Amino acid sequence: MNQKGLLLVISGPSGAGKGTICKALLEKSEFWLSVSSTTRNPRAGEVHGESYYFISKEDFKNRIDKGDFLEYAEVYGNYYGTPKSSVIEMLESGKDVILEIDIQGALKVKEAFPEGIFIFILPPSMEELKQRIIKRGSETPESLMTRFKSAYKEINYVSKYSYAVVNDTVNGALEKIESIVIAERCRVDRMKDTILNSREELIHEQLYD
Amino acid sequence: MNQKGLLLVISGPSGAGKGTICKALLEKSEFWLSVSSTTRNPRAGEVHGESYYFISKEDFKNRIDKGDFLEYAEVYGNYYGTPKSSVIEMLESGKDVILEIDIQGALKVKEAFPEGIFIFILPPSMEELKQRIIKRGSETPESLMTRFKSAYKEINYVSKYSYAVVNDTVNGALEKIESIVIAERCRVDRMKDTILNSREELIHEQLYD
Repeated sequence: MNQKGLLLVISGPSGAGKGTICKALLEKSEFWLSVSSTTRNPRAGEVHGESYYFISKEDFKNRIDKGDFLEYAEVYGNYYGTPKSSVIEMLESGKDVILEIDIQGALKVKEAFPEGIFIFILPPSMEELKQRIIKRGSETPESLMTRFKSAYKEINYVSKYSYAVVNDTVNGALEKIESIVIAERCRVDRMKDTILNSREELIHEQLYD
Repeated sequence: MNQKGLLLVISGPSGAGKGTICKALLEKSEFWLSVSSTTRNPRAGEVHGESYYFISKEDFKNRIDKGDFLEYAEVYGNYYGTPKSSVIEMLESGKDVILEIDIQGALKVKEAFPEGIFIFILPPSMEELKQRIIKRGSETPESLMTRFKSAYKEINYVSKYSYAVVNDTVNGALEKIESIVIAERCRVDRMKDTILNSREELIHEQLYD
């Protein structure tokens, strides 16, 4: 029987470096990155089915009603959501799936997939987070303070996650995430099949050898 | 503040290869291996304080009464036990500790240290376990069957452990155990200090920058 894939949820406050980590992880491993749906217009270079599934607001709302999203949110008048069926399909076929997702979305996914691996990415320090926010530009001192207050609140949610990885260097964070995946594959509650096989084999030998 | 060390408990049925794995792990890493106490006589080459602490039966029984053992057992008229104080001392000083221990002992240790990392070593197959038992010699067909029945029962206890590692190759098993240790260090419930520091630093910046 096929073993189900792992669902790896990479989450955390904005500016922590989730995107960079996921990109590096995909280059190194066999994970499948779930593509989100959105109602916003594609930007230059964005490809339907790669960057996002670009769909109409009407289509999106229909899908909400049908329960087609693992989670969704409205941001500045546009909808963003994680399609449920493709994630389930991949997991059932034994593929490991990554979701890169904000904190509210991750907590929704956790309700549907408590067996997922929920990793909270922490910035190496608040000073570093500040520098990253400043580098992104267009921040006034007031909006900077707003972002900080929001990051402060967001870090509270780490307690809802199983793992926290400090993103001091991308390679360091990657190594930790890869170790978490190996360790999770060794968890007894995920290994029932292997253990059962040992026992079946044993019974066989006792009876027929 | 000093971070407490991890307690790594390597356990499993006899013949699974616990000893070989622990030896290899100690050569590669900074773990401290707890030395057991025993009332049996030292064999040629065994050193007091390295192989075992060789103590008298009277001394051992006194220590049982004082609650000095994390766990102990009587095997063929001799006592074997894990001294509690040295393990606690090492963990408090931030040293990571390995216990190589049978299943009954491990379950006792789990009562005292539920925060320990309990790893069950599985033989790659029952056929391989059989070969290992035969190689150790002095087994009649009857005693071989008894050993198997015992291994069969022992494998049931895997459900009391967090992790199971199949010992197909020593290097493969080592890599998994090292990943488990890295992953456990990323567990949110072990990282409270780091996360608290991020928040303190943030408050500081908000007030004084």
